[in-house]
Amino acid sequence: MESCIERIKNDIENVTRITATPNMGCTRFSYSKEDSEVREYLIKEMKDLGLSIKVDGVGNIRAKYIDNNEDKPSIMMGSHIDTVANGGKFDGLTGVVTALEVIRVIKENNVKINNPIELIAFAEEEGSNFGSTMVGSKILTGAYKLEDLKKIKNDDGISAYQVMKDFGLDVDNVENEVLKKEEVKAMVELHVEQGGILDSEQISIGIVQAIVGMKTYKVKLKGVSNHAGSTPMYLRKDPMVGAAEIIIHMEKAAKEKALKDTVATVGKIHCQPNGSNVIPGQIEFNVDIRDVETEGMEIVARELISKTKEVAEKRGLEYKVDLIGESECVKLSSKLINIIEDTALENKYNFIKMNSGAVHDSAMLPGITDVGMIFVPSINGLSHCPQELTKFEDIKLGCDLLLKTVIKLANE
Amino acid sequence: MESCIERIKNDIENVTRITATPNMGCTRFSYSKEDSEVREYLIKEMKDLGLSIKVDGVGNIRAKYIDNNEDKPSIMMGSHIDTVANGGKFDGLTGVVTALEVIRVIKENNVKINNPIELIAFAEEEGSNFGSTMVGSKILTGAYKLEDLKKIKNDDGISAYQVMKDFGLDVDNVENEVLKKEEVKAMVELHVEQGGILDSEQISIGIVQAIVGMKTYKVKLKGVSNHAGSTPMYLRKDPMVGAAEIIIHMEKAAKEKALKDTVATVGKIHCQPNGSNVIPGQIEFNVDIRDVETEGMEIVARELISKTKEVAEKRGLEYKVDLIGESECVKLSSKLINIIEDTALENKYNFIKMNSGAVHDSAMLPGITDVGMIFVPSINGLSHCPQELTKFEDIKLGCDLLLKTVIKLANE
Repeated sequence: MESCIERIKNDIENVTRITATPNMGCTRFSYSKEDSEVREYLIKEMKDLGLSIKVDGVGNIRAKYIDNNEDKPSIMMGSHIDTVANGGKFDGLTGVVTALEVIRVIKENNVKINNPIELIAFAEEEGSNFGSTMVGSKILTGAYKLEDLKKIKNDDGISAYQVMKDFGLDVDNVENEVLKKEEVKAMVELHVEQGGILDSEQISIGIVQAIVGMKTYKVKLKGVSNHAGSTPMYLRKDPMVGAAEIIIHMEKAAKEKALKDTVATVGKIHCQPNGSNVIPGQIEFNVDIRDVETEGMEIVARELISKTKEVAEKRGLEYKVDLIGESECVKLSSKLINIIEDTALENKYNFIKMNSGAVHDSAMLPGITDVGMIFVPSINGLSHCPQELTKFEDIKLGCDLLLKTVIKLANE
Repeated sequence: MESCIERIKNDIENVTRITATPNMGCTRFSYSKEDSEVREYLIKEMKDLGLSIKVDGVGNIRAKYIDNNEDKPSIMMGSHIDTVANGGKFDGLTGVVTALEVIRVIKENNVKINNPIELIAFAEEEGSNFGSTMVGSKILTGAYKLEDLKKIKNDDGISAYQVMKDFGLDVDNVENEVLKKEEVKAMVELHVEQGGILDSEQISIGIVQAIVGMKTYKVKLKGVSNHAGSTPMYLRKDPMVGAAEIIIHMEKAAKEKALKDTVATVGKIHCQPNGSNVIPGQIEFNVDIRDVETEGMEIVARELISKTKEVAEKRGLEYKVDLIGESECVKLSSKLINIIEDTALENKYNFIKMNSGAVHDSAMLPGITDVGMIFVPSINGLSHCPQELTKFEDIKLGCDLLLKTVIKLANE
């Protein structure tokens, strides 16, 4: 009994045809037109399998396969369906379509299961809309309250709450839908690695032991916008040059001041008014800091705050540094790691145990249930870009491991 | 005989109500919907004055007041009607509406003139669309050919040629419309200073002696976009940190390596894909360099090129540095400076002679005719921003000086 590579491929291709940026990678933000279309596609597939489907107030799709075992806790599988801007085909979606395939195989083979199997497709994992990641899983696990959705805003200043409401979700109900311990027995997420370790070692499966923690800061520097020609250098309060100093310092802090695995990234910048011949009035940028050790993140965060203060004071700028997103470093369940490892050994899959440099929805769930993750390789380590690629043979192997693990968990 | 402050104010208020960014300053790009509306307004005012109106292939509006003197060369006045993004009410427009007012006063007083008076409203001075400034005056004076309009492109990759064509202009005809020496006797542009000298010295009028030259470069740095969490610092090819190094070096070059008045500005930056949790794949930014001495600009330009090469090689980035706009330092006509100065002295206006730190359309015309410029103060030196402000009393004084100068020139 095994998964069908053609069906997986078909799902991935059908979904990735729906993008806001044709020929420039996959852009499928939660609560967009593209998101609606993808939801329609996936929900049709789920209905065809006879799953019982519920979309919660934040937009997470929860679909259950029940075989005379309605009241028992579920074995949950899944990942997210949104992307970054100009992202790849495999990030997130791979975990959702393999979960769908697992249920297809269980159903068509009439596999006996003692627990319901639940597929979850998380909304708004990437933070593409509001700069805050894993909003769907944070709401599901109660880490975010309704109030938080009113605070975080998109680039147009519209709150997550309003965007979700406009998307037709019953967002006022989210606090009644928090996942309870008794509802779920285990969660397994299959995901592409998004780093180069598996590919460089030519290994098909990674069994995740820990997930990095993350702190995301938004820095705002306000200076005085003025004409680029008639304002002498000594009279300027230019936030662009200030931002440049901080950006360079973030690299230095991660490389030289923090720990071995600490990383810091400035991937998003916004300049106002962004005119070639105008000294900018305001620069906003985000700093993304990650590590498997909390200490590493804290070192860089302290450097960010002190450097911003120093630069702003030197240059006469107003400044603001806000923590807009945060997740803890997470150790996954040793029980699940063992079950997945045993299953991989029994089936002679080549695998390694590793850490995840990326944060995932699964990182939110350990307080509620046992969590495991299966990685499949990213060619050249590329992710969050149109060149993101995972071989379908590897996805199939990962899906088979997920299938066998889930069946084992549902029959303990 | 003098200008009417209320009419000038009325024109400025009517035009600035038309903006793409209500409550966030004036955004009126050439060839936009807002530009169309403003053209309609101005052309109606010109028609009411009985002017003979022609719009050339690049969108410059040329309107002539003729008093039995059709064949003589014109006395030209005017400025531009476009703005930067989120700019002010006075930049450019002040020179156009005061020119309109000059013709109104001449007409209603039946002032005898021996030369036609021509009002010109230049298109696309700011470079807001294509990153290249003074496109209207460059085409008018033959500094730009039709071919150049096909080369310069907006942020969507559409050529100036195509944008102008789509706006309904007869752009293929531009080379037949180049201003001839015999068509024009003198050009006088009234403009706001866009710097703080007049305001800080509490003087109403600046008579311009020289205009700074300018070089605008576009820098493109291409690295490898990747996941911000799972790519270790030592494996990154991050163009954002590279750009930050160059931006800081531009400030240092202008301040420490070039001449007294040299300035360098990075006011426009574009990051791809611009996601909070993605290492950028590409950064583009513009560098605007100016000085009244060519040498100062050249020093900074050389520093830009060598620093970009050094940074790109160190970081494994691809790079490109393109000169996308250029204008020479320009000395204005001593004949016109004298006439304007005499007129100011006769009328007891308080004035100083000064240089222009900003480049203007007038800088393109000295090869064709005698050029003069009149500055009025910018409060706190602010320009290219919503806070840009010039007192209407000062604009009226500038307009009266323009009026008296033009009448003198038309009766020499």
